[in-house]
Amino acid sequence: MTSGNTTDELVKRIRDDRENGASELARQCLAGLARRARVLDADGAEGLRNKLVELAKQLQNTRPTMAVIIKLVGQWIDAVERLSTDNVDKLRNEASACAEKLIRISTDAVSKAALNAANLIGVDKTIITHSLSSTVIAVFEQAAPRVKAIVTESQPPGEGRQLAAKLSKLGIATDFISDQQMGLFVTQADVALVGADTIAADGSVINKAGTYLLALAAREQGIPFYVCFESFKCSDLVSTDIVLEQHDPAEFDPPELPHVKAHNIYFDTTPPNLITSWITEDGVSRKPGGQTSI
Amino acid sequence: MTSGNTTDELVKRIRDDRENGASELARQCLAGLARRARVLDADGAEGLRNKLVELAKQLQNTRPTMAVIIKLVGQWIDAVERLSTDNVDKLRNEASACAEKLIRISTDAVSKAALNAANLIGVDKTIITHSLSSTVIAVFEQAAPRVKAIVTESQPPGEGRQLAAKLSKLGIATDFISDQQMGLFVTQADVALVGADTIAADGSVINKAGTYLLALAAREQGIPFYVCFESFKCSDLVSTDIVLEQHDPAEFDPPELPHVKAHNIYFDTTPPNLITSWITEDGVSRKPGGQTSI
Repeated sequence: MTSGNTTDELVKRIRDDRENGASELARQCLAGLARRARVLDADGAEGLRNKLVELAKQLQNTRPTMAVIIKLVGQWIDAVERLSTDNVDKLRNEASACAEKLIRISTDAVSKAALNAANLIGVDKTIITHSLSSTVIAVFEQAAPRVKAIVTESQPPGEGRQLAAKLSKLGIATDFISDQQMGLFVTQADVALVGADTIAADGSVINKAGTYLLALAAREQGIPFYVCFESFKCSDLVSTDIVLEQHDPAEFDPPELPHVKAHNIYFDTTPPNLITSWITEDGVSRKPGGQTSI
Repeated sequence: MTSGNTTDELVKRIRDDRENGASELARQCLAGLARRARVLDADGAEGLRNKLVELAKQLQNTRPTMAVIIKLVGQWIDAVERLSTDNVDKLRNEASACAEKLIRISTDAVSKAALNAANLIGVDKTIITHSLSSTVIAVFEQAAPRVKAIVTESQPPGEGRQLAAKLSKLGIATDFISDQQMGLFVTQADVALVGADTIAADGSVINKAGTYLLALAAREQGIPFYVCFESFKCSDLVSTDIVLEQHDPAEFDPPELPHVKAHNIYFDTTPPNLITSWITEDGVSRKPGGQTSI
């Protein structure tokens, strides 16, 4: 992973990333901010702070569907704005340290959420998942090798390949399927587990397009559908107010024809009635925003 | 369309086709048989008949999931076995004519089924479909241009591109989406309509993988899910006894890794409880195998 050698490169890399999940990208934003805090040219401490806050706000705007970027970077902005600015070097150190601390807090939250998910799922189970989530990878790390996996390709762009590579290294027996086979393979799974890009205020899960289809198939086949996430992903917005990112349809090479318009909406919304449990660092809840138990 | 210049080429072409639906392929089998009946080298009429029947049986075995190939080619075998064999040229003509007659019967059945579907759906509606079906194309031909379409890419191999090209020529406003966006776009459709590779004895629809996911999304969003097919597609087998074709996973370029096994099951099964109406040349039925009305 590179953090981006310039401010513009950092913003572009986060905006254009099509493979990593929201938690990973939020931490990449913070790592980039820590690095920029150390090296950015600035005319005095106040000038540096202004530049850093401006960059942070640019990063918040890169991925409107990902609440965790807005929240974690927002916490960093709040902290940096509270730092004293009598000394440039001190500001560089403290702003970097603050970003690194937020990375640790996020990483710890993901680890705890993953442990809670692994404990809930138990051993000798087959887990079907969709897309690439650093949180879901953490669950597999907790559970390996005594679980099996069914991994979807997750087109476009097919980030399921990266998940399969991770699981292969963990020694987890993995079935790799095209997304269209979800309905066929959910019958072979004990549980469906996904990460999330954002959790809406009503408990809806905003995640890679296709997640809703997996949730429908899971319910129809009578297996639980779990979502595991650090609570920084919880948005104050209801699902209908969350912008679903759209990207260039060229990514899946649609035909260019009269009367034909191609679409590439990246995320879909899985409503609470399709979700069995919400799993965070605080525990497992059977209701959106409800009491958790560990 | 070529019919295959040799017997082996014909068998290979039908076996390897990944884009056309079952009705179209069944008619291509018959067209190939008509052509081979005219040109095949043979030692006398009985020798010719034996060669033709052998080829026909090879064709029946190419696509085990497609009942319509087995049925239409089976009817041709029955007819050819009843033809007198006192004259090679007469046998050539009659065997060819018989194949062409079966093509006409099938084409007429598809046209009538399509007309029944178009009448049921009505005008100014948006139809979402999956995969490429000559029967669904016939429905759009009946309804054009006073319907809109939502077409899935239908990976692998993406035969939805061919459907989009057909609809473009018909002047039908078409949204083209990757399969993962089905759940997002079903909310914009008035009706889901698919063809079928086979209808099982219990009314289940065997169709391109992903059809089941579309049916689940259609039910969840409260829009009807119609299947339109010529009745030659009805199998005597129950769905669990129908072999779902599997093809080389290389088609979607899965990773080759230790512990990771890729799958490419081409069809899935949509059970009767997800189907609103079965539409054939005989009319519209609300129950599998039930009374039809036109």
